[in-house]
Amino acid sequence: MSSAYDVAAVGNAIVDVIAPADDAFLAAESLPKGSMSLIDDARAAGLYKVMAPGLESSGGSGANTVAGIASFGGKAAYIGKVADDQLGQVFTHDIRAIGVDFSTAPLVGGAATARCLVNVTPDGQRTMSTFLGASVNLSVGDLNAEMIKGGAVLYLEGYLFDAASGPQVFAKAATIARDAGRKISLTLSDGFVVGRHRAALMAFIESDVDILFANEDETKALMQTEDFDAAVAALRPHIEIAALTRSEKGSVVVTKSGAEAVPAAPVAQVLDTTGAGDQYAAGFLFGLARGKALRDCARLGGLAAAEVISHYGARPQVAYKDLAAKAGL
Amino acid sequence: MSSAYDVAAVGNAIVDVIAPADDAFLAAESLPKGSMSLIDDARAAGLYKVMAPGLESSGGSGANTVAGIASFGGKAAYIGKVADDQLGQVFTHDIRAIGVDFSTAPLVGGAATARCLVNVTPDGQRTMSTFLGASVNLSVGDLNAEMIKGGAVLYLEGYLFDAASGPQVFAKAATIARDAGRKISLTLSDGFVVGRHRAALMAFIESDVDILFANEDETKALMQTEDFDAAVAALRPHIEIAALTRSEKGSVVVTKSGAEAVPAAPVAQVLDTTGAGDQYAAGFLFGLARGKALRDCARLGGLAAAEVISHYGARPQVAYKDLAAKAGL
Repeated sequence: MSSAYDVAAVGNAIVDVIAPADDAFLAAESLPKGSMSLIDDARAAGLYKVMAPGLESSGGSGANTVAGIASFGGKAAYIGKVADDQLGQVFTHDIRAIGVDFSTAPLVGGAATARCLVNVTPDGQRTMSTFLGASVNLSVGDLNAEMIKGGAVLYLEGYLFDAASGPQVFAKAATIARDAGRKISLTLSDGFVVGRHRAALMAFIESDVDILFANEDETKALMQTEDFDAAVAALRPHIEIAALTRSEKGSVVVTKSGAEAVPAAPVAQVLDTTGAGDQYAAGFLFGLARGKALRDCARLGGLAAAEVISHYGARPQVAYKDLAAKAGL
Repeated sequence: MSSAYDVAAVGNAIVDVIAPADDAFLAAESLPKGSMSLIDDARAAGLYKVMAPGLESSGGSGANTVAGIASFGGKAAYIGKVADDQLGQVFTHDIRAIGVDFSTAPLVGGAATARCLVNVTPDGQRTMSTFLGASVNLSVGDLNAEMIKGGAVLYLEGYLFDAASGPQVFAKAATIARDAGRKISLTLSDGFVVGRHRAALMAFIESDVDILFANEDETKALMQTEDFDAAVAALRPHIEIAALTRSEKGSVVVTKSGAEAVPAAPVAQVLDTTGAGDQYAAGFLFGLARGKALRDCARLGGLAAAEVISHYGARPQVAYKDLAAKAGL
């Protein structure tokens, strides 16, 4: 069946506030380096107050991924909830400006658009504190069935599980995709997300997921072992395809029949790792939707990840289509 | 008399939306390259809709200048009007986060915080479309006399003249500064601003200005001649000190007794010229407040301008204090 979109994604619609910070700042604010913490409105205000001047830009893991899909020359749809406020307008503008279809009704009269306060240390690590705001108001009613049916692959963010409606949204979106004969993919998003929702995520993976994205920490958290190889072995019976990212070690593509390591693409300097996993997923999913071999999907993911960590911000600054062509992919 | 601040600045408080664009886009939108156009809310919405994804960051000419002063290790105060909205919060956060004193009450229940839509072409030129919003509601009552009295130099933006209250705000601020024995400086801001308000600006320069900042276009517009040298000769009787910027040709410092050319500082690549004039003024004013010779003031200005044009955005990304130390200034 032909598809209108390479990927239809569902995620938390978030605007990033990116600022430089040092290790002493993280320590003073009790922020574990490299983590994503959920914070409430009061803590968001307090933390923002002590942060350095920032750059605001559209973010959200799944939204970053569809931005990557668009950069590869693909077509994507996005479903996520902003508020009817200035940052919501920024999010809406930016995602539409790259040609992604986005039409989820904004929340009126409730919480503000979600914000992720990103403190970037000189080693390029990003420490994220997220005020989920309006994004957790995404409901089953917001799932645009035509978009989901139209996507060769459905992409779901594990972060969504932190909303009360998350499990229902996952189940409904998966049902729509499955009934339309579409593939379903999931990213685990964050080790702490896995810790909070392990059993439910595992059950969802077993019942619905065709392609699982996870990094090393998330893989280990899911399989409850400190040994990555053991985690991979334990995971294999539960998945069809798992694309597991390992930072500078590249990624491992695991199927029931085996595991193949794909080296990372070269990167001149790592400035800000924000968006590395999001853009890896973009390359992988674009390749998958276009019928590439899994190894080439992983290579496309690696190309995109290498680009995004070489600058501040979680979205492409060059056309991934050109990078792919140059790499012969 | 000792001063609490090196500089107290009064300006239009604006948040920038910076996005890449090409020449065809400027032509299609009838935007003269390198210009600053004033736009209304409807045009701002329409133009934003067709712009590429952007980065939001605090801007405003005078506010960029005080950010530069702070980067040199100086102390500054800022007076300008935002609205009580999310972009106003961004502006307020960013200027306070760099240690600038800012306490102007935000506008409640009126226009939104001012936005400048900045389209940056591959040649590094910025074309600005400004929705003045809340900023034009700055009134004489907002002029914090203690801040102005506390600044070794008062810095006023020519852009302010586009607000109905602009001339009154200039006159009152100048009176407070003069009565406290402070120096008064003015930037002409933009050739079109000069065109709109030439006579009033000239009268203000004659009566109140000790240090005038202008680029070539503004100087020529003010003196109504196409010849820069003729403009300088015509200007000299009207000013005490004029610091005239000439892009890659550096700057010329003009006094009643002569004119001295100071070469531009070297710059590896020009990525975005937004903020060049603002940061030149920062270096010059910091030097002046610290009692440096005019030539060194101009060199400090050149250093700061060279840094800011080497990256996207109108505020410092490195400590100007370090640049100055390295240059022996």
